[in-house]
Amino acid sequence: MRTSYHEELDSILDRLVHMAELVEVAIREGAESLLTADLTRAESVISNDVQLDKMHEEMEYKCLSLLALQAPVAGELRIIVSAIRVVFELARMGDLAVHVAKIARLRYPNQAVPARFEDSFREMAAIAIEIVRLARVSLQERDAKGAEQLVAIDERMDLLRREQFTMLLGDNSDISIEGAVDVALLGRYFERFADHAVAVGRRVIYIITGQVPEGEDWPNA
Amino acid sequence: MRTSYHEELDSILDRLVHMAELVEVAIREGAESLLTADLTRAESVISNDVQLDKMHEEMEYKCLSLLALQAPVAGELRIIVSAIRVVFELARMGDLAVHVAKIARLRYPNQAVPARFEDSFREMAAIAIEIVRLARVSLQERDAKGAEQLVAIDERMDLLRREQFTMLLGDNSDISIEGAVDVALLGRYFERFADHAVAVGRRVIYIITGQVPEGEDWPNA
Repeated sequence: MRTSYHEELDSILDRLVHMAELVEVAIREGAESLLTADLTRAESVISNDVQLDKMHEEMEYKCLSLLALQAPVAGELRIIVSAIRVVFELARMGDLAVHVAKIARLRYPNQAVPARFEDSFREMAAIAIEIVRLARVSLQERDAKGAEQLVAIDERMDLLRREQFTMLLGDNSDISIEGAVDVALLGRYFERFADHAVAVGRRVIYIITGQVPEGEDWPNA
Repeated sequence: MRTSYHEELDSILDRLVHMAELVEVAIREGAESLLTADLTRAESVISNDVQLDKMHEEMEYKCLSLLALQAPVAGELRIIVSAIRVVFELARMGDLAVHVAKIARLRYPNQAVPARFEDSFREMAAIAIEIVRLARVSLQERDAKGAEQLVAIDERMDLLRREQFTMLLGDNSDISIEGAVDVALLGRYFERFADHAVAVGRRVIYIITGQVPEGEDWPNA
């Protein structure tokens, strides 16, 4: 009984890592579909999200069942309680990738992102992919130091977002209403990718140390 | 020992209800500051959010401690695990109210909301306040039926959001870039209030029934 219980705990961590890999793909493909106006890619991000939602439901059910049936303590309890939150954060990132892909689809065959915002969104996409990758690696290697790095990357994302607002509302802005709405919402979605990754990092640190990092440096994303 | 433990469980539920009341105030005041360009009100929503963030941290710490120290089972375990999620959802709603108030402050002394969108946002605000109130009452009275009503209210919010896009991008739209950006983001924030309330409803149902409602009708907000 105990063996199979420990196998279940290991399998939860493995599945979190696998889910994070799928989320990384969703973000990369969503961003690519946006920046290359690739309808097929956009459709595939949208339809693949079913799998992430399904994993979310299954993992949540499994974790709640383990809590109910095994009455885990200490480190095991931390893993299960954290897993419930991490699958939620990952599933939200998948939803955001769908939002990005839907804007790409809505504007197809045009580019949703106005030309002068392309570099900015390309950088945001790179940051989002990097922060999710680091969150996954910190989980995989149970590396609290790695998880701490996420906050600095999140700050780069916030800076890019502020720059986008300056560009949007600057005097020489010749953007359309549609373009402005897309930029505002897309900027929000990319910013949220990073926030959710930071939240995953918080849980990784909690799994390892038993302490939830708090305060200014650790926004409750 | 058991008595004080049960007192702690009751106090968790009481504090969730109290936190939901504060969130309702934050949403109402945030919306009022927005719709009346009231700087004092906006500032107060922004500064009061510290309290919600503090409650979030304290409650999360308390719940994780109870899990670690008491090894609760069955209904008690469900309350604690759900409370961790509910405080998170409530704190996010508080953050969104701050986002709304910050847009009001940014545009002061002007109205952030363009005149022709005022009715729409007034209705969104009323829906947001109502859905949070119902989520709180369902929690207070442990009323699963009440929690189920949240989904229908959420749909009204989504409909309003779609109408806003139609108005924004319609042929006779004479809105400024700034106005369009504000409407797009504010619409998103109000939509998210409802999503988070629905997520609270899911947890109320889980506390009562032991089942997490799933599927199309219960988006994993």
